[in-house]
Amino acid sequence: MVAPAPLWAGAAAAEGHDVAHLLLVLAGMLVGAKLLGDLAERIGQPAVLGELLAGVLLGPSALGLLPGGGFDAEFIRVLGEIGVILLLFEIGLETDLREMFRVGPTSLGVAAVGVVLPFVLGFAYWAYGPHVPSGGGDLHLAAIFIGATLTATSVGITARVLGDLGQLGSKESRIIIGAAVIDDVLGLVILTVVSGLAAGAGLTLLGVAKTFAVAVGFLVAAVMIGRFLAPQLFNVIDRMRVRHVLLVFAIAFALGLSALAAVAGSAMIIGAFAAGLVLSGTNQFDTIEERVKPVAGVFTPFFFVSVGGNLDLGLLNPSRPGATTILTIAAVLTLLGIVGKVAAGWAAPWDRFRRLVVGVGMVPRGEVGLIFAEIGRRSGVLSNEVFGAVLLTVMATTFVAPPALKALFARGRPAREEGP
Amino acid sequence: MVAPAPLWAGAAAAEGHDVAHLLLVLAGMLVGAKLLGDLAERIGQPAVLGELLAGVLLGPSALGLLPGGGFDAEFIRVLGEIGVILLLFEIGLETDLREMFRVGPTSLGVAAVGVVLPFVLGFAYWAYGPHVPSGGGDLHLAAIFIGATLTATSVGITARVLGDLGQLGSKESRIIIGAAVIDDVLGLVILTVVSGLAAGAGLTLLGVAKTFAVAVGFLVAAVMIGRFLAPQLFNVIDRMRVRHVLLVFAIAFALGLSALAAVAGSAMIIGAFAAGLVLSGTNQFDTIEERVKPVAGVFTPFFFVSVGGNLDLGLLNPSRPGATTILTIAAVLTLLGIVGKVAAGWAAPWDRFRRLVVGVGMVPRGEVGLIFAEIGRRSGVLSNEVFGAVLLTVMATTFVAPPALKALFARGRPAREEGP
Repeated sequence: MVAPAPLWAGAAAAEGHDVAHLLLVLAGMLVGAKLLGDLAERIGQPAVLGELLAGVLLGPSALGLLPGGGFDAEFIRVLGEIGVILLLFEIGLETDLREMFRVGPTSLGVAAVGVVLPFVLGFAYWAYGPHVPSGGGDLHLAAIFIGATLTATSVGITARVLGDLGQLGSKESRIIIGAAVIDDVLGLVILTVVSGLAAGAGLTLLGVAKTFAVAVGFLVAAVMIGRFLAPQLFNVIDRMRVRHVLLVFAIAFALGLSALAAVAGSAMIIGAFAAGLVLSGTNQFDTIEERVKPVAGVFTPFFFVSVGGNLDLGLLNPSRPGATTILTIAAVLTLLGIVGKVAAGWAAPWDRFRRLVVGVGMVPRGEVGLIFAEIGRRSGVLSNEVFGAVLLTVMATTFVAPPALKALFARGRPAREEGP
Repeated sequence: MVAPAPLWAGAAAAEGHDVAHLLLVLAGMLVGAKLLGDLAERIGQPAVLGELLAGVLLGPSALGLLPGGGFDAEFIRVLGEIGVILLLFEIGLETDLREMFRVGPTSLGVAAVGVVLPFVLGFAYWAYGPHVPSGGGDLHLAAIFIGATLTATSVGITARVLGDLGQLGSKESRIIIGAAVIDDVLGLVILTVVSGLAAGAGLTLLGVAKTFAVAVGFLVAAVMIGRFLAPQLFNVIDRMRVRHVLLVFAIAFALGLSALAAVAGSAMIIGAFAAGLVLSGTNQFDTIEERVKPVAGVFTPFFFVSVGGNLDLGLLNPSRPGATTILTIAAVLTLLGIVGKVAAGWAAPWDRFRRLVVGVGMVPRGEVGLIFAEIGRRSGVLSNEVFGAVLLTVMATTFVAPPALKALFARGRPAREEGP
């Protein structure tokens, strides 16, 4: 007799794919995220730090629960993708559009400095600094990639930290979120340029301007049209009789607008954020927000655990050959990355505390930095060693921001006690 | 310049896979499910019928939104799999274990008749009936497969219908759910046998007994151990500080127990149901149930829309060559399938109304019947024509039960008005 259990176990298994193992991995990710998240909170750190650490522990270089490739890895990545979309959607829902306009110029300044300065620092270090193996490729091209990686801001990580600290409503948070969203628009432009350079294409001003216009145009158009149509649409939906109808339509709206953003040449998370801004103008806003939160809460751990899973602990082992070089490069890049973003906080016309909060909030590179680094590695512009160093930089900036923000708020503001 | 948008659009896209398109499909499935679900309710039918129809409309033979294969199809299938797991988990949560024991013998009788009678009818029709092309294969083997397909009960479909009608708490519902779960255990045994036969293996009584013992043993052991340990475990979890901790652990518990069930040689949905039964004994039961419902509400449409998407409307076209044969076989099998299951209701010691409700509730074959049919097709036991006819039978029994149950309850009981 053939082994029948996996067949019966579900239709997907009939395709020869083992769903049971994937579900065990998903359950393990959820449990790990919450256990370490709770531990992080108990020692006074934001929960997201614990979720990232859970990813490191479950990742290929430690316990090896997370799949390294194949269908399962891609499935988890897309789940995480949906998680970050729902997170940005939730943040968009909580964002007051008028407040956003009020802090707009400040956010723009912070974003601009936070992109230009890290890029220049990264580029200059690599192109002119006293160092190390370039991997045989084009030195200037590698320098551009390294600079580009340092420009990224992971709005997902920062937003979660601010949420964990109960600070999402504060003015600093709005500036950070606004700057991070603008950063994504700028990142899109930079990515167009570096992808083109990596593919050997020339650089045209028209192409750059077009990418920029599309990215900005989508956000503006979606919010303007959406704010006008969505209230009427959701009044109709609200009268439907089927269960969970508001929740399901809201999530479909977020997924759809994210996808449209990507199709239109903008970024998914910009579409998700726009969806939240749009639905914050509906009459059903309170119900939608209340019901989206638990769903987002189930999806987001897959994102943070996945991001953490990218850190290869072996890179931190000083006895590996070439480890000193990699660790040195990573240390310098991390320092430059932190300095560049923290300095961007000074574009906000404020006291030192708030400038620091905004600057530190921009530090995590997260998944956005990973994408840049990965393109560099694939196109051969970055050698494996340099890619490893850039990866360490991305992770270090991601891991350093949550405790730093927590410490800042604990000092500058009265600490809040959080319930479960 | 290379087109950069999909790259930036997310880490998954960096793997060359277009997440944006997948998200559009997911959004379309959610919107379609709720629109047609609402329409179904407005014309007095259960919402799940609309969700199944949405699948037919979005499926490959009509609008073609649903992917026919590849990563996206598999992704949606696994999402649907999680949906049916969460649905059975929810039903387990709502099930009173003592009530379950009280109706146990009745459920057992209903399940036994509902497996034996459809099998005998299907087998006899195929092996001895006056008919049609056997596809050149072994006639008795094909007859066994056809009989086996008719034994299946889709607890997911029936449970959703009962839920849509607000009848999940009724005694008939408990008997149906109990019988459907027992049916899954028996189905597991049958699947072992037919898979073995399809692979050319002999039939051993020991093998059958072993499969049966494992399937039953897992359910009993999981519930017994779980009811003892889970209350203490969830008291600890309840004291954790991180957000959504009860919800996330409950879902991890359901996914984990489903996976373990499959690994242990039982069925995933049995594990999911057991997880619900176990957590219904915790002190945090109310909170868990309230928070799991919206999450399940987001996942389950993927299941029902997927099931609907399996119906090829072309099979219904009478002008196709061989269509009359296929439609005739399908009509006979559907009739036998309905008669066999409805007769099973008479194993319940009751009045005619309740017997009918129980019997009709067992009629939908849903995804479970699809699995049997698919194995038959793959192994060459069923020809493509016969497979088409069996597929139509599965879909017809699935589509006929929701309106029939609705009509029964409307006549036998005072109709309930349902809010949104």
